[in-house]
Amino acid sequence: MSTPILAASRRTRRTPFSTRVEAAGVKGYTVYNHMLLPTAFRSVVEDYHHLKQHVQVWDVGCERQVELAGPDAARLAQLMTPRNLGKVVVGQCAYVPLVDEAGRMINDPVLLKLAEDRFWISVADSDVVLWAKGLAFGLGLDVAVFEPDVWPLGIQGPRSDDLAARIFGEEVRAIRFFRFAELAFEGHDFVVARSGWSKQGGFEVYVDDAEKGQALYDALFAAGQDLQVHAGCPNLIERIEGGLYSYGNDMTIEHNPLECGLEKYCRLDGDHDFMARAALEKIVADGGPQRQMRGVTFEGDDCPACVEAWPLLANGHVVGSVTSAAYSPDLSTNIGFAMVDRSAWDIGREVTIETPAGNRQGKVAAIPFI
Amino acid sequence: MSTPILAASRRTRRTPFSTRVEAAGVKGYTVYNHMLLPTAFRSVVEDYHHLKQHVQVWDVGCERQVELAGPDAARLAQLMTPRNLGKVVVGQCAYVPLVDEAGRMINDPVLLKLAEDRFWISVADSDVVLWAKGLAFGLGLDVAVFEPDVWPLGIQGPRSDDLAARIFGEEVRAIRFFRFAELAFEGHDFVVARSGWSKQGGFEVYVDDAEKGQALYDALFAAGQDLQVHAGCPNLIERIEGGLYSYGNDMTIEHNPLECGLEKYCRLDGDHDFMARAALEKIVADGGPQRQMRGVTFEGDDCPACVEAWPLLANGHVVGSVTSAAYSPDLSTNIGFAMVDRSAWDIGREVTIETPAGNRQGKVAAIPFI
Repeated sequence: MSTPILAASRRTRRTPFSTRVEAAGVKGYTVYNHMLLPTAFRSVVEDYHHLKQHVQVWDVGCERQVELAGPDAARLAQLMTPRNLGKVVVGQCAYVPLVDEAGRMINDPVLLKLAEDRFWISVADSDVVLWAKGLAFGLGLDVAVFEPDVWPLGIQGPRSDDLAARIFGEEVRAIRFFRFAELAFEGHDFVVARSGWSKQGGFEVYVDDAEKGQALYDALFAAGQDLQVHAGCPNLIERIEGGLYSYGNDMTIEHNPLECGLEKYCRLDGDHDFMARAALEKIVADGGPQRQMRGVTFEGDDCPACVEAWPLLANGHVVGSVTSAAYSPDLSTNIGFAMVDRSAWDIGREVTIETPAGNRQGKVAAIPFI
Repeated sequence: MSTPILAASRRTRRTPFSTRVEAAGVKGYTVYNHMLLPTAFRSVVEDYHHLKQHVQVWDVGCERQVELAGPDAARLAQLMTPRNLGKVVVGQCAYVPLVDEAGRMINDPVLLKLAEDRFWISVADSDVVLWAKGLAFGLGLDVAVFEPDVWPLGIQGPRSDDLAARIFGEEVRAIRFFRFAELAFEGHDFVVARSGWSKQGGFEVYVDDAEKGQALYDALFAAGQDLQVHAGCPNLIERIEGGLYSYGNDMTIEHNPLECGLEKYCRLDGDHDFMARAALEKIVADGGPQRQMRGVTFEGDDCPACVEAWPLLANGHVVGSVTSAAYSPDLSTNIGFAMVDRSAWDIGREVTIETPAGNRQGKVAAIPFI
């Protein structure tokens, strides 16, 4: 198979950073929330090693924000997620599975509580804005629902604090995990959160002004030369090692959050009002999920691209499917995520994976890998 | 700027025809409804000439269907569009702008009335299923809303009837424009509609079984050798010539349907119940849209790719933006679509277009061009 190019059009929107990303030599793009998301710069493996040692600046402008603002904003936010938002305070980020009335996953975003009556939902790849708009209209809620022009910029890697401090000042170091603060750069206040789609630490800067964001981008590179700063992006290998699922790859509307191992975000004990409550209570009453996300390790020093789910077998029977996979240089094995039936989901279980490059022997593993 | 590849992952879903499309030498892909959509085979220009002379088979599996089924299906469908669905009969396709309560475009799909209480909405690039699910839940409607696994296959071009007749029999010729019939191939009944995203005539086959769809694909190519059948896809040049807008390119949630020239689908005179009624009535009462979609022709025998909106100027002032553009070999000029302010929207008005390749002189033109 040849490698088709990504044809450009206005519909697959560029971000304020795309020109800079291309000057930095982006090798591949994917489309995420109708926007461009880089997937590799030097190579996925080189980017991986660099991310774990240094610091990278990521164009994650495709993380669209769905803003809920108004008297019913908190009620709508709570309705969409089984997580109890009652204890989330202004200035806090919260990972919130969004789940419909049948208990199915709609998205798995991070919610930012900007004010008691104002939230940003930083969404994975589905049009959450349309779901929220439909709910708000149907229920007659007093809330504005829209996608503001906000393009997150990631600062990720072990030297993230050092780089961010040179731009935003030492106070950036005091931001706790999954908290955010408003910090000034060149006279503009940016929402800066300690978060990001890697396990290497770092920040996400919510850029709400394209021009000032570009100045910020350039300043980060100018200030980080001695830190070996480089353009980067979410890294397939690192995110699997760290146990970061991808909506659309590892979980879809076909799954419920208990299957996805997200039970800690599904609080059925509180009295908060969310639309998935009855569906999730029934799953629990019926004995819990019958399949669940697991890690898999499997033989070989190479790994084909997982572009369609691979059958997972135990004793010759299909017991699940692998949805993301990569070779991990640091673990010296192939690793992946799989949805596995209860009959075979015990850690250590021997399994066979049908990859396009042939069958591979492997084992069920715990998540995260590292 | 180099040309980044499209990185493959399960999230940007393949269709049952992707392997065949790649064997046919697909040159470029875009991502549409989280799925792969081919954009060129031999080249956009070669594909254009071929499409206008012969017959092509298109993998438009990315045209996801949103199924509405149940007692409130018709009520929900009507709520989402200003078009009066009262006269649409079973077996009919209807182009239906989907418009929210503020009069903003959500999508511009084709609706298929499968039964009095069952519809498919064949959507452009946005997650209409989420909007419909939110509305149904919020309003407490008795309707199932979901995306069935249906992958349309296009047969497009002047020889479409001849090719389709060899597969489905002579009765396929009797299908009227925007009507569909169920026709058998190898014992399986396919929904076959006279429709498609070109102006060259043809059909869309709604493939609801991957394996039987692949057999159909292969049979079309085997039967069409002497008709010079080739793999094809929606063609940028042909669709601009023919006046086919693209949601996400030419119209977005920032536009209302009157700005998009869709007033014939916005029937404010009926008593049908749709959520955009008050918003559209207000626009009309306030004097109608203040900008509207127009064609533009402009100088040069080449046309850069329009990946971001280009400013359109009249007398030195910005009066609009160009959102799609291409050089038309048959018209021997550059053509495009633009959203143009009332002050400059008269046909023939001289304008300047700021393209990445420099300013070009042009004129406002009627749509379609051919």
